[in-house]
Amino acid sequence: MGGTVEFWFDFASTYSYLAALRVEEACQRADVALRHRPFLLGPIFQEQLGIKDSPFNVQPVRGRYMWRDLERLCEKYGLPWRKPTVFPRHSVLAARVGLCAGGSAGAVTRAIFKANFADDRDISSPDVLREVLGEDAALVDRAQTEEVKAQLRANTKEAQQLGLFGAPDFVIRQGSGDPLAEIFFGHDRMDDAIAWAANGR
Amino acid sequence: MGGTVEFWFDFASTYSYLAALRVEEACQRADVALRHRPFLLGPIFQEQLGIKDSPFNVQPVRGRYMWRDLERLCEKYGLPWRKPTVFPRHSVLAARVGLCAGGSAGAVTRAIFKANFADDRDISSPDVLREVLGEDAALVDRAQTEEVKAQLRANTKEAQQLGLFGAPDFVIRQGSGDPLAEIFFGHDRMDDAIAWAANGR
Repeated sequence: MGGTVEFWFDFASTYSYLAALRVEEACQRADVALRHRPFLLGPIFQEQLGIKDSPFNVQPVRGRYMWRDLERLCEKYGLPWRKPTVFPRHSVLAARVGLCAGGSAGAVTRAIFKANFADDRDISSPDVLREVLGEDAALVDRAQTEEVKAQLRANTKEAQQLGLFGAPDFVIRQGSGDPLAEIFFGHDRMDDAIAWAANGR
Repeated sequence: MGGTVEFWFDFASTYSYLAALRVEEACQRADVALRHRPFLLGPIFQEQLGIKDSPFNVQPVRGRYMWRDLERLCEKYGLPWRKPTVFPRHSVLAARVGLCAGGSAGAVTRAIFKANFADDRDISSPDVLREVLGEDAALVDRAQTEEVKAQLRANTKEAQQLGLFGAPDFVIRQGSGDPLAEIFFGHDRMDDAIAWAANGR
């Protein structure tokens, strides 16, 4: 058994969508453990860039490219894709739901990401999330407890301390609380990160 | 024979270094033609971001990650690497040299990039460039003609019109002046771009 990959993501992030749909299978193939770590990009963009929107909206030239790139990548990997009519969608509630999904984290995470980026649904709505989650719908109420809210704030703070500046990210540590975490940014680094964890370096 | 890949780059750009050292061999393997297109990122960053420095300096959290990422990628691909003591280096003269290298564009481009990112040399200096170029040293004088200066301005303007926002980029067109150019941004998209050109789509 190899190491563990922490998968850090925001449900509003386009490249996180790609990674979310592929990471569990890729980790299983490499015999690497996977831990889902939802966090919020909003406070990070505000702190580092001084913006209250996605950088892809603030920089329209880059944004135009990103949408074309996503379309091309989804075709490459055979993933469903529909450009959402609202971007970025508020992802706070979805992140809290992801946080308390326990052993269903993989399936719950994929279902919410698909709702946003394959079905263009409003994942900020509790009713939409309940429908999307089906038998896991009770998570939407559990997500709104103070304990879960505090957990999400802690995740986002940890992301800042790790030096994350976007999503998705793949984090590999030598041990718990390891200050020398190895960080891989972007869906483009997913395979490198998993190989790093599998090889114990 | 497949299509043609235009390789757009700035000699100050770290990820362009990786691409420059790998692109010619990768194109040859895929039987795709290659055209070197040096341009300047400075005016683009100034126009789109309002900054007169590299975004990796303006955003230090992202910058820290980039340096680690480059080190890791050079190890992965077996490329020499030394973090330059000055970043970004002024790349105007180097870009002009690259522009007039003709059939030696590949070798000249690699030599200048290695000087900057493997040997930490000041590629803004004509004397350094002459030394680095060896038998092609006469290019440094040819580079300073009005004609070449105008060509570089035209390349940078074309980059802006294409919607480039960083480097490297790989551009594939259906025909000359094709407004529907397919653009691939980043060393991470080099293989996808070459496959696109090879498959005629």
